[in-house]
Amino acid sequence: MDNNRLKQQIDWTIEIDKMTHVERRTLLIDGSRRENDAEHSWHIATMCLLFSEYLEDAPNVNTEHAASLCLTHDLVEIYAGDTFAFDKEGNKTKATREQDAARRLFSLLPKEQGKKISALWIEFEKMQTPESRLANCMDRLQPFIHNLNTNGHTWLEAKATTNDVRARMEPIKLFMPKLWLWVEEEITKNVSYGWIIE
Amino acid sequence: MDNNRLKQQIDWTIEIDKMTHVERRTLLIDGSRRENDAEHSWHIATMCLLFSEYLEDAPNVNTEHAASLCLTHDLVEIYAGDTFAFDKEGNKTKATREQDAARRLFSLLPKEQGKKISALWIEFEKMQTPESRLANCMDRLQPFIHNLNTNGHTWLEAKATTNDVRARMEPIKLFMPKLWLWVEEEITKNVSYGWIIE
Repeated sequence: MDNNRLKQQIDWTIEIDKMTHVERRTLLIDGSRRENDAEHSWHIATMCLLFSEYLEDAPNVNTEHAASLCLTHDLVEIYAGDTFAFDKEGNKTKATREQDAARRLFSLLPKEQGKKISALWIEFEKMQTPESRLANCMDRLQPFIHNLNTNGHTWLEAKATTNDVRARMEPIKLFMPKLWLWVEEEITKNVSYGWIIE
Repeated sequence: MDNNRLKQQIDWTIEIDKMTHVERRTLLIDGSRRENDAEHSWHIATMCLLFSEYLEDAPNVNTEHAASLCLTHDLVEIYAGDTFAFDKEGNKTKATREQDAARRLFSLLPKEQGKKISALWIEFEKMQTPESRLANCMDRLQPFIHNLNTNGHTWLEAKATTNDVRARMEPIKLFMPKLWLWVEEEITKNVSYGWIIE
């Protein structure tokens, strides 16, 4: 057995446990604390198994591949940190920071495995395949659901407007138009609660 | 759109966020706290994308299906609780408690989706398909790696013997014999550190 190869794989398994320390702005549903990237990634990967029927152009999408994109989509944040969705300054430097992080993290793996995980990350980011569209929709739907259940926590924190929230939810508008109708209804309700600014 | 169906799917998404509150015995790699089921499920699902080459009889296993089995394998613990691997009493009642939990949790979903998630759970438990074998091996390898990096935390807590640890790691012995060689070496080292009882 190639012990050096195994060591790389085990060391990488140890390294990515740091996802449990990358804190997001979103609260857990019970409001007790912020969620972390490992929890978020698990949640949206599992959601891929449930919500594919809303993907208008590709109801027969490979949900398990979409789930894999979710598992790996935030790994670069181990080095680049989480960039808050409504942080306009942070989002300007996000792409460069994440590309540097990707090079650093994926090069720790045996070469062809680093390429494979990197390809999953790029597929998620480009949003051109049906699977990456499903994954991106879940990445937007999950924090939306969390906000609905935590008194609009991150919307209030960011003083988010309806335009900010609609921009954030754009993949659902584009790829899941039936689900978008529900999103729009909820945005209207949440404006009336004072959680989103008109 | 069937709003009742969507409500079931969203309510279930909210319900399974409770995985973040199911505490395991295993510590995170940095030793700061115990990990939870959401984090553990994410970690082993991601590991499926890396370790399939060690599955002796099925190196071409569908790793993404194995990852889906990992995402859903502990959902029943939302109601049944985590049963510590080395808790002999708790393990006697585990199957019954988890079957009750499965009925309760999966029946909250639209019928065919409940069946689908239930089938993933049963596949994982039966360990008869190559994918379920990969998933079970990762479910054993991950806490083993965590113990190696946290001074044998759960082994010491359970006063685990080499026999206990070998029994726990049995799927790796059966299905990943090359990786088993490394496991055996590590067990020997950890006996010498006093973390596992000879």
